[in-house]
Order: sequence, then C-alpha cells, then structure tokens
Amino acid sequence: MKTDIEIAQEATLKPINQIANNLHLNEDEWEPYGHTKAKLSDKLLKKLHDKPNGKVILVTSINPTPAGEGKSTVTVGLGQALNRLNKKAIIALREPSLGPVMGMKGGAAGGGYSQVLPMEDINLHFTGDLHAITSANNALSAIIDNHIHRGNELNIDPRRIEWKRVMDMNDRVLRQIVVGLGGPLRGVPREDGFTITVASEIMAILCLSTSLEDLKERISKIVIGYTYDEEPVTVKDLRIEGALTLLLKDAIKPNLVQTTENTPAIIHGGPFANIAHGCNSIMATKTAAKLGDYVVTEAGFGADLGAEKFLNIKSRSGEIDTDAVVIVATVRALKMHGGVEKDKLTFENVDALKNGMANLKKHMETIEQFGLPFIIAINKFPTDSEAETNFIQAWCESHGAEVALTDVFAKGGEGGMELAEKVIAVADSNERNFQYTYDVNETLESKIRMITQKIYGADDIELSQKAKKQLAFYEKQGWGKLPVCMAKTQYSLSDNPALLGRPEGFTVSIRELHASIGAGFIVVLTGEMMTMPGLPKRPAAYNMDVTDDGKIVGLF
Amino acid sequence: MKTDIEIAQEATLKPINQIANNLHLNEDEWEPYGHTKAKLSDKLLKKLHDKPNGKVILVTSINPTPAGEGKSTVTVGLGQALNRLNKKAIIALREPSLGPVMGMKGGAAGGGYSQVLPMEDINLHFTGDLHAITSANNALSAIIDNHIHRGNELNIDPRRIEWKRVMDMNDRVLRQIVVGLGGPLRGVPREDGFTITVASEIMAILCLSTSLEDLKERISKIVIGYTYDEEPVTVKDLRIEGALTLLLKDAIKPNLVQTTENTPAIIHGGPFANIAHGCNSIMATKTAAKLGDYVVTEAGFGADLGAEKFLNIKSRSGEIDTDAVVIVATVRALKMHGGVEKDKLTFENVDALKNGMANLKKHMETIEQFGLPFIIAINKFPTDSEAETNFIQAWCESHGAEVALTDVFAKGGEGGMELAEKVIAVADSNERNFQYTYDVNETLESKIRMITQKIYGADDIELSQKAKKQLAFYEKQGWGKLPVCMAKTQYSLSDNPALLGRPEGFTVSIRELHASIGAGFIVVLTGEMMTMPGLPKRPAAYNMDVTDDGKIVGLF
Repeated sequence: MKTDIEIAQEATLKPINQIANNLHLNEDEWEPYGHTKAKLSDKLLKKLHDKPNGKVILVTSINPTPAGEGKSTVTVGLGQALNRLNKKAIIALREPSLGPVMGMKGGAAGGGYSQVLPMEDINLHFTGDLHAITSANNALSAIIDNHIHRGNELNIDPRRIEWKRVMDMNDRVLRQIVVGLGGPLRGVPREDGFTITVASEIMAILCLSTSLEDLKERISKIVIGYTYDEEPVTVKDLRIEGALTLLLKDAIKPNLVQTTENTPAIIHGGPFANIAHGCNSIMATKTAAKLGDYVVTEAGFGADLGAEKFLNIKSRSGEIDTDAVVIVATVRALKMHGGVEKDKLTFENVDALKNGMANLKKHMETIEQFGLPFIIAINKFPTDSEAETNFIQAWCESHGAEVALTDVFAKGGEGGMELAEKVIAVADSNERNFQYTYDVNETLESKIRMITQKIYGADDIELSQKAKKQLAFYEKQGWGKLPVCMAKTQYSLSDNPALLGRPEGFTVSIRELHASIGAGFIVVLTGEMMTMPGLPKRPAAYNMDVTDDGKIVGLF
Repeated sequence: MKTDIEIAQEATLKPINQIANNLHLNEDEWEPYGHTKAKLSDKLLKKLHDKPNGKVILVTSINPTPAGEGKSTVTVGLGQALNRLNKKAIIALREPSLGPVMGMKGGAAGGGYSQVLPMEDINLHFTGDLHAITSANNALSAIIDNHIHRGNELNIDPRRIEWKRVMDMNDRVLRQIVVGLGGPLRGVPREDGFTITVASEIMAILCLSTSLEDLKERISKIVIGYTYDEEPVTVKDLRIEGALTLLLKDAIKPNLVQTTENTPAIIHGGPFANIAHGCNSIMATKTAAKLGDYVVTEAGFGADLGAEKFLNIKSRSGEIDTDAVVIVATVRALKMHGGVEKDKLTFENVDALKNGMANLKKHMETIEQFGLPFIIAINKFPTDSEAETNFIQAWCESHGAEVALTDVFAKGGEGGMELAEKVIAVADSNERNFQYTYDVNETLESKIRMITQKIYGADDIELSQKAKKQLAFYEKQGWGKLPVCMAKTQYSLSDNPALLGRPEGFTVSIRELHASIGAGFIVVLTGEMMTMPGLPKRPAAYNMDVTDDGKIVGLF
C-alpha cells in the first residue's frame, strides 16, 4: 500500500479556477492562493442568501478508540461517491492544526484515496488562517499586559486573567509559565500559559460567525478576565475589537480545495472538540450548502461530543438544517469497545464485537433523539473477517438500521457507492423531525443535566464547589441563556476514559466552567482538559523532509 | 494631505498576472496569492543563472533620527522614477513585521505616493512568510524542550540554551519568562524568553540562502546551545533540519507585488538590522537583478549598519555586485545631527544644518572606502527652507558629491526624476572599484577593529571579560573565519545613542558575542539590544478597524 503522501503526489489536481468555475463562482467571489487553493469571498454567503440549500449530511462516529475509525476519510470518500453518482456534492471539513501534525499525527486531511489536496499545504500553513488566529489572540494578550503595565486603568486583576496566549505547536513547557520577570522594563509579572491555537476562543468565534460584522461583534464581547471587584472585562473595554477583526479579515474567508478525485472541498476553521464545539465554520458549511446539492460535513470525536455540539450549538447558531447523519464505526474499534486489547485486534472475535455494539447502539439512540435519519458506515480494514462483517450487517438489520460497508481508503469514491446511495435515499426522503436536546432558555444546570442524561446516559451530575459558585455567578451575569459546550473525554460516553462500550449507572463530575461569551457558549469542564498537547518521544516531525528539488516526504 | 492608506486605496492596481507577464515570467515560475500578490518560484534564480545582471542600486542613509529620513519611500520613488524614464526597474524591499505595525509604526511599506501595495496585506500577514518563520523557530524550541523532557540524550545544559522562542508581536512580558512549571507533565523548568520573529536566526538564514538546499544546510548548522561539557549542540544533532526546512518551503519564495505606480516590487524577508544583517533576501535582490535592468534595494538603519552589512555580509555571501549607492538624508534629520531639538525642527537653522553635515560626510567616506560611486538624495519635507536646501546643494558641490532633491512622498516617481537620472549616469559609468572592509580570514577581533575604526571612526575597542572569553572560544571552535555582524545603536556612529553628528575620539565597548552559525556570522553586541519590543501607551492597533463592507482604516 502506498503512503498518503505518495497517493497525494500521484493525484492529478485540477487548476483551482476550474473547480471554482464548476461551482459557477464569479471572478470577484474567490481569490487564488497558489494554483490549487482558493479563498471564497466572505460576502458570498450573503449574496447566495435566497438560493435554496442543498442537503446537509453530518458524518459522526462511535466513541473514538486507538484502533481508528477514519471519520474524515469516510467524509471525503462519501463526497466522492456522491459525485460519481452525478450528484453535485461538496465536502466541508476542519483545517488541521500544525501542532499535532508535527507531533503524533503527521497529517490530518483524510487518507488513502480519500484525501483533500494539496495535503502538503493543508497540513502545514494552508492559507494562514491558524496563523491569523494566533496573531489576533496574542495581540489581545499583549494589549492586556500593556494595559496593566501602563497603569491598569480598567483595574484588571492579574490573578483573574482567563485569556491565555496561544501557539500552533505541541509544546508542553508552555502550559504553565511566569511572564513579566526581570524588572520594570519587562512588564508586570504574573502566571500565564499557552494553549494550542485551535483552543483559542477566537477560533470558536471565527467558526460561529456568519459575517465580518458578526465576527467583530462577537470579538468585542470576549471576557478576558475580571477586575479586582470581580466584574468581567471585555475586549470592547480594551478598545481592540477593530484591530483583532482586521487581523482576521482573510481568515474569515472559507478555503476551497479539492479531493483526490477532484470533488470540491471547503476546509475552514478547526476548533477544539472538547473546550470548543469541534466543527468547521458555519460559513463553510452554509456556503457548501448553497453551492452544492449535497454537503458532506463532519464533527469532531464521537456523536456524544461532535454531533451533540454540531446540532445544539453550531446548527442552532447558524440555522443549519441537517438532513441525514452517517455514524462511522470500524470492526476493530467496536471490538475495542467490546473489551479487546489493541494488540489483539487482528484476531477474529465476534463475541467482543457483539459486546462493542452497545457503544454504537447508544449513538444511534442519540441521533434518533434528535429526530434525524441515519446510516451506519462500517469503514473496512484489511483484518476484518467475513464473520465479523456479516455479524454487523445482521445486527443492523435486526435493529432496523441502514448500514453500508465502505472501503474509501483503498478505493476512493468507488468504495463508498453503497453508502452514497443509501445516504441519497434517506436524505431525499425528508424523514427529519428535528428537535434540540434542550431549550436554551433553561438554566445552565438544567442544560448540563439534559446532555449528560440524554446523550451520555448518565444517572446524575456532581457539581464541585467551584462549579456551583460559577453557575450562580454566570446566571447572575445574564449568561445563563447561552448553550453549554461540554468538555469531556472523547473515549467514553462517561467522564472516565477507561469506561468503553456503553457504561451505565455513572455520575458525571462537573469540575469547573469557563465563559466563552464571544463564542456564545459556556464551557463545562468534566475533568482536567489538556489544551496544550506535548510532543511524543519520537515526533512525526523527525520523518519530515523536503528534498532539494522540492519533493516532500514524511507527511502521512 | 491624504493618509497613506487613503492613497493606497485610491491607487489602481494591475492584476498580478499582468505584472508577472511584463517580467516575462512563465506560468510555472510564479503562483498567485490573491489577485495582487504572487510568489516567485524558488527555482527561478537557478534558471536565470546565465542571464546578465541588471545594475544594483543600494539605498542607505545617514544615522536615523526621530525626525525621519524616508529611506523606503525614496527607494520606492526612485524605482518609479526609473520606470518613468523607460528603464526596466524592480524594487527589492524587506517585509514589514506585524509587531511594530500594531505598536508604533502602523505600517511600513513606503509612504504617500511611493508605496508598495496592497499595503493592507503587506503590513499584516502578507503571504505568511513571517508566520512560517515563527513556526519553524518554535518547532525547534519545542523539540529542544521535548528532548530534555524525554531523557536529554544529547546532554543539553538547560542553562546554556541560546535558542529562544519567537512571536511576531510587541510583547514585553515575554522578554524574560520561566517555562516548564507545574510538575513533570509540564516539562523541565528553565529560564527562557521570546524575541520578535524578525530577530530569529531563521529569518537571517532565509535571507542569506540561495536555494532550498542551501536553506536546509544552514538550518542544520544552527547552534542552539551547549552541553554540560560546553560542546555546541546543533539542529543536525536534533535531527530536525528536514521538518524545519519543510515548514519554510513557501517562505523561501520571493514575493512579487507592485507600487502605487505599478512598478514591480519584490518584497522578501526582513531580519533585524542590529543582531542580524537588516536586508531583504539574497533571492529577492538577485532575482530582481535577473529580471530587471535596475534593482533598487535598501538596507536597514544608516550606512554604518545597513550598508556595511549589505556589502560585507549579504553581498559577499550572495555574490552581489553593487553599482551605485544612494545616501538619503533630510534637512530635518541633518539639523538634529547638528544639535537641534525635535520640537524646533520647523525653524530655519542653517548653522545647525552645517554642523549636521558631518554625519553625512562620514557616510560618504564610508561608501568611498567601499570603492562605490554614490548620490546624495535629500528627501523633501514641507518645512525645509530655500536657504537650507541651497546650503546643502552648495555643500555637496564643494565636496564634489552628486546630490538630488526628491519629493517622492507627495509626487511619486515624478518627484524622483532628478535622482533617477543621476543614478543612471553613475551606475552606467561603471566607476565601481569595490573592496570589502575586511578579509574574512582575519581573526574576529581584527574584523571588529576594522569595522569600528573604518566605518564608525572609533579610536579603539574595549572588550568585556565575557567577550574576550567568547572570542577565544569561538576561534577555537573554528568559527573565526565568519564575518561579524555588529549590533550597535542605529542613532549614532558610536555605541552611545546620544552622540549625534560625527563623534570622535570614542571607544566602542564590546559586551558579548553570539554565534549565528546557520546564518554564517558572529553577532557582536556593543550594548543591551532589545530583541522584543514593547507596545506604547497608545498602540497603533487602537486606530485599526475594518468596516462591515471590508474597508480598512488605521494603517498609515
């Protein structure tokens, strides 16, 4: 089998103007970034306002495991398969973050014959969106510390600054630092830390904004911390929303690229999927829906986190109607949920698979709760046995669920034809009867209870003293009507990563909250969330190189 | 008078493909970045190797003062004037750094009717070069700290790490920090600091590289610090030169834009002019020389720093032949050198002007030492009196020096016609009889003495104990044959910023050295050099905004 980058380098890309022309874009509606990347105008969405929307297909998954599910690969493969069926499909994905690419991942733009291209650029700097977010985030930090250094007119309490600096790098020593050392020329000392860029509230804001105007409005509302009197301090108080928006004037424009089979893909934004909502931008998804008959889009992690936030946060804010959901699973991953260790996954084990189906079952129920039709996609691995895949198909039949086997990694769109046909049938049948998990007007605590009980299957929640205090304080500030953004481990339906399958009888501990007022949600932390990754013993970067004639190796 | 951004927004830009076509570039030799920016292929220079070079015109100045000289504006204006005389001229400039743009400057892309455009992009993220350098620099930092955290096989002494993190922001609290706090999950604690991106050795390397191959070779040689046994540790030891070069694969490509009058401009790289060499990239200048009949390029600060390094470091490394030098001065700045306070500059003062000419005189002698012909450009300000400009013209005549008055800020190329005519006459006369200030094979100390005596006019140098020890250590390491890169205040010919005009009888104190082995020079610090600026009380960012329909304000 060829590596991802070898496949990518052998693919024949169309010039991006051809992709843009196929979408009937006018010259003033897009700009080239090199010959195979483009940015779409941020005015395009407004211009297309009256055009009917294409069908929106959300790709989600079971709780991820180290065995791998291939959700992005299925998303790309499905888009390609729809095009093979002569449907005008557009893929909407998140942008990879450079930190994980240099660390564990090596690359994050689909895989095999279902990739978005040019993967060498998409995985590195792409069109600079993450860099622009980094700049805006850190300009705000510099302005905060400069304000304090210059007399602190706003009475900001340096111990209560919640706004952190960011870097798009996996760099553990920046998690907890002391800045401002070395005397008066070097500012006022305080504790600080860096998170990775995708964890910046500005990333979440960019992804939830529907225009430049909306972006500026949201930025101005960011609460950076509190005064000595515990009053919130906003970006507006610091008078810097104009400059920050200016720094994002190009980052807000969705990026247009193509897949290995020349299917158009809009790749834009990539917020963390725990402390933020983990979806590509509203502008990307909505623009794709205006330009295509079908949009295939994905949300981060499993349906308990990704789909929940896609539907309760992103779709609510962006007025997006989802027509069908694809739940991705693999035989390997389901066996892990059924209790098999990672090094034993290559052996056939139908009993474990049977146990593992409980995890998939819960996510099916979740999507049913939302009132949305779904198809299960079993993403093929070479080690899957016939008995195992037969079992899954029989199980789905007996549960009245549509299922399709996909082999999009090895075969591209050709490996997703069955899935595509079933998706079309379901999406076109207009079976949706959508309902949110909660009414935003309920209290924060009530919304947390709804999600943990209905989506996770928890018995109860346990609030720390700090969380209780914060809930009361946030309600008092008038922030109680915002949706909640749950930060929970992705590996389990519960808040304990070790509990695979479908845990029952558990309580979710709510440790603390964080107010992302610009993004427009309250983050609810169920445990210690690491917002700055570290590098492994052997970072993926060690394999990366570019030869003298420009050939790139080591991205995979 | 209109502001710079108003003038910029009223200018009619040609599509960048038209600019590229005028330069006879093939389609595979450049890539668009939007409609008015492009990147030139890094292979172009090799391809054009046998083409004869156009004339290289270096624009330098007297020691800068708060009164302003307008060196970049004259550079742009001169290029425009040459084009008005039907000469194929190309401008080669440095890229602005976002930090100062947000801080004091507001913008740095020429001024008035002599600007490079689109200034809104050039002053912000441009084509992402500085962001790529930031990423590469900080990836190296993360790899260093990860190496130590994972067992420190190379025996790196955390107290002797010289490689700092960088950010393209003016952020004083990052000057001196402690990282790695909070226990074993957060790495090994140590003292660290951020410098601004343009001070990164990677910026200097990028600007001195002639190909991707050369770039990787130089990166591998970077000395990041020392072991507990005081042995140098290089990037090659950390096996990360491939990944860092990969991160710079696009940043190495020179950027093509145009001026207010559609003159082509190659804007690429912008290293600090004290701890680095302060010039645009060798690839930019050489490519411009291959594509044009005249290249107008500039070097940072006055001739004592900028021209000295352009000629002794950049031109030596890049084999660039300079044909003529323009020394920029203003009546106001010369009066400051003659003892006038900033708030009295609007009053006529021929006596002060006369005194101030001593500064210009020294720089004329410096250029003569290099064996290069020069023209003095007096950049007009509205407050200049006739008596003052008459005095300068008479003075130049009596000293046998060519002089031209320029008014390129208010009039664009039209205001630089006299200068352009004189530049053509001098450059075409082949009067050059070039010689370096020193032979690189001499000792480091001898090279420092040559520069301080011949270029600054110092009597002697005084080496600190640390500098003495370092000189011996560097010679022993085999680094003695590298050129030296002087880090001195730009405001004075001496190392004391208060000594304006032409100080005499002074000694230059050499405080310490730094080995930039990848860049290929030894930095010689004559005082405390601030490599991370701070924000002023009222940062320029406060004025910046983008309106809902995308109009940009507050860049000037």
